[in-house]
Amino acid sequence: MSAADEVVEVKARKILVAVDEGEESMYALSWAVNNLLVSSNNTTTKDTLILLYVKIPRVVYTTLDGTGRRMNPSTQGYLFSADILSSMEKYSNDVAQCVMEKSRRLCKDLQDVKVETKIENGDPRDAICEVAEKLGVDVLVMGTHGYGMIKRAFLGSVSSHCAYKVKCPVLIVKRPKSSSATRE
Amino acid sequence: MSAADEVVEVKARKILVAVDEGEESMYALSWAVNNLLVSSNNTTTKDTLILLYVKIPRVVYTTLDGTGRRMNPSTQGYLFSADILSSMEKYSNDVAQCVMEKSRRLCKDLQDVKVETKIENGDPRDAICEVAEKLGVDVLVMGTHGYGMIKRAFLGSVSSHCAYKVKCPVLIVKRPKSSSATRE
Repeated sequence: MSAADEVVEVKARKILVAVDEGEESMYALSWAVNNLLVSSNNTTTKDTLILLYVKIPRVVYTTLDGTGRRMNPSTQGYLFSADILSSMEKYSNDVAQCVMEKSRRLCKDLQDVKVETKIENGDPRDAICEVAEKLGVDVLVMGTHGYGMIKRAFLGSVSSHCAYKVKCPVLIVKRPKSSSATRE
Repeated sequence: MSAADEVVEVKARKILVAVDEGEESMYALSWAVNNLLVSSNNTTTKDTLILLYVKIPRVVYTTLDGTGRRMNPSTQGYLFSADILSSMEKYSNDVAQCVMEKSRRLCKDLQDVKVETKIENGDPRDAICEVAEKLGVDVLVMGTHGYGMIKRAFLGSVSSHCAYKVKCPVLIVKRPKSSSATRE
């Protein structure tokens, strides 16, 4: 075996990328794919790329509480019928699937990398940190605007929260005004 | 030429790593070397790694102002003799050189990567952002505690400031409690 054929075995890493419906998270994923996961014939990384999408639960209540009593709308929040709740749930699942498919497409050229997807429910700030911790990932990648312009308004900066909380390295990728998400 | 010999040419990147006298920034540099700059025989990146150290100016005044008049110590700040100022300057330069040598040693095994060093004066928060902007770097790497425990106390978090300000991706690397700074 010549030196050129020699396989360099390096320890596999777990790379967690938080994705959402925003273009910025797709750019962050592309950046990670092109800069952290470049593989060649001589290097087998066997890294695992975990794509995480967090569904934010809507603050809604069914028209009946646990005891069967009707709640007071003015104090308990908005009321939605089971049909509307079901439609909203379906829409939320469709968005999650759509984001995951788009993310997977960005990873299609990766060799020697295992791509996994994970969908969680909750506040993205907590969910991302919990998954990073639980899986013991080596690096967390995310866009700055995590979770879109509107959601960000009431969630605050997801990325700065995670950068502060998680113990592993955090890569925050901003999308340039004009960019093609390629290694540059 | 066989497929195994084929050289994959990818666009060269500029990677800026902010280093200081703290162990955390050395860990951040090692992480970047092992995770962003891995090269193999089949991939020539020709990346440039820029090691940046920022010297923080001490708030001191000479005993004479520009016009030759002696300043009032109680209103103008501490007074130091030229000898002491010169010693402090020498010490500061020695620290910078020491950090740079240590940083260079961590990069000694890098192939196809041009390593440059840069020493700036000023507030590290501004200096790092300015260099990143001016050089148009592709990624900024830094530890969380940038600029040591004591300096951090009055400088605030350098990394969070830079993560907010710079336009390029920012990789914030925290040093685990027990770590060997290797790719893991």
